Amino acid sequence: MNAGIIIIGDEILIGQVVDINSSWISREMNKIGFRTETVITVGDDGKSISDAIDRCLDVADVVFMTGGLGPTKDDITKKVICEKFGTELVLNEAVLANVAEMLGRRGIALTENNRGQALVPATATVINNAVGTAPGIMMERTTSRPFDFPSTNAQGATQGAALGNKLLFSMPGVPFEMRYLMEHEIIPLIKKHYNLKPVFHKTLLLTGIAESILAEKISDWEDSLAENLKLAYLPAYSSIRLRLSVYQPDDTTESYINAKVEELKRIVPENIIAYEDIKLEELVGKLLKDKLCTVATAESCTGGKVASLITSVSGSSEYYKGSVVSYCNEVKADVLGVSRADLEKYGAVSSTVAEQMASGVRRLLKTDYSVATTGIAGPTGGSDEKPVGTVWIAVATPTKVVSRKYVFGKDRSINIERFAASALSMLIVEMEKEC
Amino acid sequence: MNAGIIIIGDEILIGQVVDINSSWISREMNKIGFRTETVITVGDDGKSISDAIDRCLDVADVVFMTGGLGPTKDDITKKVICEKFGTELVLNEAVLANVAEMLGRRGIALTENNRGQALVPATATVINNAVGTAPGIMMERTTSRPFDFPSTNAQGATQGAALGNKLLFSMPGVPFEMRYLMEHEIIPLIKKHYNLKPVFHKTLLLTGIAESILAEKISDWEDSLAENLKLAYLPAYSSIRLRLSVYQPDDTTESYINAKVEELKRIVPENIIAYEDIKLEELVGKLLKDKLCTVATAESCTGGKVASLITSVSGSSEYYKGSVVSYCNEVKADVLGVSRADLEKYGAVSSTVAEQMASGVRRLLKTDYSVATTGIAGPTGGSDEKPVGTVWIAVATPTKVVSRKYVFGKDRSINIERFAASALSMLIVEMEKEC
Repeated sequence: MNAGIIIIGDEILIGQVVDINSSWISREMNKIGFRTETVITVGDDGKSISDAIDRCLDVADVVFMTGGLGPTKDDITKKVICEKFGTELVLNEAVLANVAEMLGRRGIALTENNRGQALVPATATVINNAVGTAPGIMMERTTSRPFDFPSTNAQGATQGAALGNKLLFSMPGVPFEMRYLMEHEIIPLIKKHYNLKPVFHKTLLLTGIAESILAEKISDWEDSLAENLKLAYLPAYSSIRLRLSVYQPDDTTESYINAKVEELKRIVPENIIAYEDIKLEELVGKLLKDKLCTVATAESCTGGKVASLITSVSGSSEYYKGSVVSYCNEVKADVLGVSRADLEKYGAVSSTVAEQMASGVRRLLKTDYSVATTGIAGPTGGSDEKPVGTVWIAVATPTKVVSRKYVFGKDRSINIERFAASALSMLIVEMEKEC
Repeated sequence: MNAGIIIIGDEILIGQVVDINSSWISREMNKIGFRTETVITVGDDGKSISDAIDRCLDVADVVFMTGGLGPTKDDITKKVICEKFGTELVLNEAVLANVAEMLGRRGIALTENNRGQALVPATATVINNAVGTAPGIMMERTTSRPFDFPSTNAQGATQGAALGNKLLFSMPGVPFEMRYLMEHEIIPLIKKHYNLKPVFHKTLLLTGIAESILAEKISDWEDSLAENLKLAYLPAYSSIRLRLSVYQPDDTTESYINAKVEELKRIVPENIIAYEDIKLEELVGKLLKDKLCTVATAESCTGGKVASLITSVSGSSEYYKGSVVSYCNEVKADVLGVSRADLEKYGAVSSTVAEQMASGVRRLLKTDYSVATTGIAGPTGGSDEKPVGTVWIAVATPTKVVSRKYVFGKDRSINIERFAASALSMLIVEMEKEC
């Protein structure tokens, strides 16, 4: 089954907002057996939206649209949907009541613009939005097969009427509203009516190896993979995910993939740090929870990024006690207890200072582990000896303190991401060594 | 002039990687007068890439493709380009030398996969990639008008031959490599050959007002805007940007827009915090630099996000001294000096604790200002009295400490973003009050 996604919004085409909806929808739909065929981004323009709908309905069974439903005047999505599906906008009292209630809870009065949000195509199935004012809308492409929407069917869903051939869902562009509608209403609906086997994915997380070296090392292994097994390299900052996918799995798929993974372990034994699709910060948490240990961070050049990654994981308060972001040398000395003489002698970007930061924060916050970063994110502050992109990372464990230098590129934001990911990777490698 | 963008990669369609290239390209091209007409994302699949090229060339003058050029086996973009443009892949010695040098600098040997990266379409203009191994490629759609590429023209670019009608650029998908090629090679080239007026944008940053209330308040003003002036609402966490755009500016555009902005100031005088397209964290930096003041942060629920935003700005070390991420009460008491009795009596999520955190970090890190957050990001930890989404934010200035409670939604990652943005907004409002 194929999905198509249409992202609507001038703000995206002008580059002021990054679309994070399409990747989320793709990931969630993939889990239930849909492959996204294409994502088309268009502006708040009737003709473009109309063309995108046509193109998506050509290649996809289900089309998701996000955006163009807000309370302000530049929204035209619903009008285009009416034109395409030969219907007209009508006021939906249930939606209007929801809008009034949503606003009322925040102490805001209903405006004429909000009233416009309660207008929906007459033939639409309305999907209630419990977390925002714009409703979701479902349209059916063909009317030749009757469509039986469970939540509006008085006889209950046991009749199991099939969905019409092509479905189009229009949702608000606000990411959490879209996700709420998908999770609570749309995905359960699609799951119930289509009965597809899920795609089988096995993802391995590797660190400490360049993409091209990995590709060369595992070239023969890759050539030996069965025809229906698709391999993808997903390089990220300081790690590479290898994803093996089978789109038509059968009873033998899992054992076959496990055998292939065993072969791979013999080829790159040092580099695999996880056998699941897990983020570095999630793996840090998993290892710490297994060990019943705690961690703290001391950050200079990463400026809170490592802390932010670790605490992005729900439940991180179980093992994460905190961070000292020591963006100036004064804080490194006064709060973390780094020697002023060493700061002077070796400079802030040095093995010695990184190790003292790690030891200092471990002592101050009373944790089992700690990780510290000190480097030059750029674009300024570099020298011949320590160019922009240089970072020293130190990890303190209950038994030792280790440090390592990495040299990356010139882009500040990329450097911060790479420094932070490398800090997490190094912490993981040191923790796994102690197992 | 119109641009079209094609993003290639199964990893994007499966939702494991978020495309940040298209928004960057759109933003940069917009600055030089191009409007992105559409963005199409397709998988590593010849037919889909081919169709996307056709569709983009239909609506756009210049087409940008990113992805599908890496060193690993799943890359097929160059083959499709050859088919479409009726040419074949040939080994380019200059590219091969660049690949070898790039890898050599990192101490990595050239592999067979890397050698494949030096294959380019025979009729392509190669754009050297100084920061990675995959070259950029430029193809010309029509050969009826001669194309004169400056860097390969021995007579120099003064002859000023026009570009062919439609151009297609293929670039690596790694964001910083793509950005490097665009900034250093492709944009200068396009700028030189087309001579368009830039689009005129004026962006205002507002805070403390809901989108629908704003729309209602400025409805009459909006109706009074000239026909060629386009208004867009760009809501973000804790702020809304209002963007006024004129795609065919003339000599009167700037003064007309300035007059309209003056009118707007009279309608929502409390809410406009900046008259430029600036991020909250950049505005914090600008205000602090103007005042020659410093700031520190103390973060509980935001876990380093506020620090991370502030330090994402280049030059932030001038005014940012650091943060204490106190993810547990022990650190709030031991490091920040929050009263244990108050933690017990009022709970960590309280006005009192937020204010003591702000005062504590301001004292510890010796800064002029500070901002502190303490709240419940979720999904667990909420109660009837303090539901998930509750945050207390405190700002300490040289003259006072103020705190305010906000209540947001249930999504952890969205809450962290909103808490952090609200902290920056509140800091800005308090700093602007002291001007």
